[in-house]
Amino acid sequence: MMPDAWPGEIRTAAVVGLGLVGGSLARDLAARGVRVLGCDRDAGAVAAALREEVLAGVLDDTLAAAAEADLVVLAVPVREVPRLAAAAVRQAVRARLVMDVASTKAAVVNAVEAAGLGATFVGAHPLAGGHRSGWAASRADLFRGARVFVCPTPSATADAVALALAVWAALGSVPETIDAAEHDRLLAWTSHLPQLLATAFGLTLADAAIPHHELGPGGRDVARLAGSSPDMWTGIAATNADNLVPALEAMERRLRMLREVALRRDEAALERAFREAAAWHAAG
Amino acid sequence: MMPDAWPGEIRTAAVVGLGLVGGSLARDLAARGVRVLGCDRDAGAVAAALREEVLAGVLDDTLAAAAEADLVVLAVPVREVPRLAAAAVRQAVRARLVMDVASTKAAVVNAVEAAGLGATFVGAHPLAGGHRSGWAASRADLFRGARVFVCPTPSATADAVALALAVWAALGSVPETIDAAEHDRLLAWTSHLPQLLATAFGLTLADAAIPHHELGPGGRDVARLAGSSPDMWTGIAATNADNLVPALEAMERRLRMLREVALRRDEAALERAFREAAAWHAAG
Repeated sequence: MMPDAWPGEIRTAAVVGLGLVGGSLARDLAARGVRVLGCDRDAGAVAAALREEVLAGVLDDTLAAAAEADLVVLAVPVREVPRLAAAAVRQAVRARLVMDVASTKAAVVNAVEAAGLGATFVGAHPLAGGHRSGWAASRADLFRGARVFVCPTPSATADAVALALAVWAALGSVPETIDAAEHDRLLAWTSHLPQLLATAFGLTLADAAIPHHELGPGGRDVARLAGSSPDMWTGIAATNADNLVPALEAMERRLRMLREVALRRDEAALERAFREAAAWHAAG
Repeated sequence: MMPDAWPGEIRTAAVVGLGLVGGSLARDLAARGVRVLGCDRDAGAVAAALREEVLAGVLDDTLAAAAEADLVVLAVPVREVPRLAAAAVRQAVRARLVMDVASTKAAVVNAVEAAGLGATFVGAHPLAGGHRSGWAASRADLFRGARVFVCPTPSATADAVALALAVWAALGSVPETIDAAEHDRLLAWTSHLPQLLATAFGLTLADAAIPHHELGPGGRDVARLAGSSPDMWTGIAATNADNLVPALEAMERRLRMLREVALRRDEAALERAFREAAAWHAAG
């Protein structure tokens, strides 16, 4: 799919956080001729982004330079977004759109709305992460073909929402609007549960003193997410605990069931379970 | 790594089962000039293997033609191996080596030994499976670079063991001998546990009416093994339940711990868990 044309009214962007998602976004914006100002708590990331001419300038802690931006993107862990969003919306006097890209959306959208800063704020969550993180993992075209959830605040203007959709489409991704609470319920099962499974699997093998290199190809697939950013995932698990806990309980019930039928060597029940899971997988 | 030279004393091989592993092995043997006789419960697989000139001839249900073979490989689900092994060892009057390739080893090795048929029998388990199965998934060079566990019966001759190691090395794989019981204990954690996690994850999402296509890249990694062969895995879980049950219990304890700290929104404990799992992953 060819990306849509870049929305020409966005000439200057401020990107707060130059990790995997923020850094990749900064690369894509710069490649489209946008003047990108950025910052990161890692000074090395800022220096690299300047050296690679992805950044045209630096934002200081006050985000004062965000006043020049038509678009502000907050690409920081979810726990830091609400505080930063308030500062960004206040500083970004000319911006028509302020977005975050964190993996849970209700906490952010509710906080911005409650602060009365919702008009230009649209939450976004591109499904283009991975277990690698930081500027070094960022790359051009990370979002091409990726699904992007777009969660407007209740008071977001139609202009801000349309611009958010246009920006993501111009990066080659596939944006869809979804209510923030519904997003968090869905992602608890499709993203946060598998992350916690991989983490629990890693902890279980560590407890048993079995190193990662003992895994075969299948086990490595299951374990891959165990390498994800602890900082980012602490925020996700904490802000989406209400949805995550029932998903974990459901998973624990299924594991217990499998353990019980294995203990009984109930081959009919085992085969039924493997068949049901394979049918779910094959249905796509 | 270059494969070792093919052991020239093996001119005719009988391969029982032409699925992913048996079919790939038949391809590799035929490519080395070995005359391969084979059979499969799927007549279409046999026809395809004959048409592709992988098989030079067909084995009937009595395995009578195995009398011509220097090497017999049983590439069938683990539950079928003990019965077939007895028939194969009795028929294979000139074979210096009879191997199976199933994913649990103690049940097979113990059954063959108890039947007094251990002299020429060596169990093998190549870590080169995957979630695809059947002749259609088989391919040349599947075993190149793969780790292969080799589990001799207690009464296997040194000649049979050396020949098993030579065969796998000639296919480009990395064989290592290991006691069958120790193999099963290790694989319960490194292979069977992640399979049951993927299966339980698939069942959990199916229960929640969430289709596979809702998963992002990370969730798809965790779910991949849910598509594995139900028949094969029923046999593995049933024959290795003694080792699998403690691994599942340990995993359930870690999941419950993560759920409890998420419920309390204990960010310090969450972050510690994510860090420990990431450290295990990074240690390799």
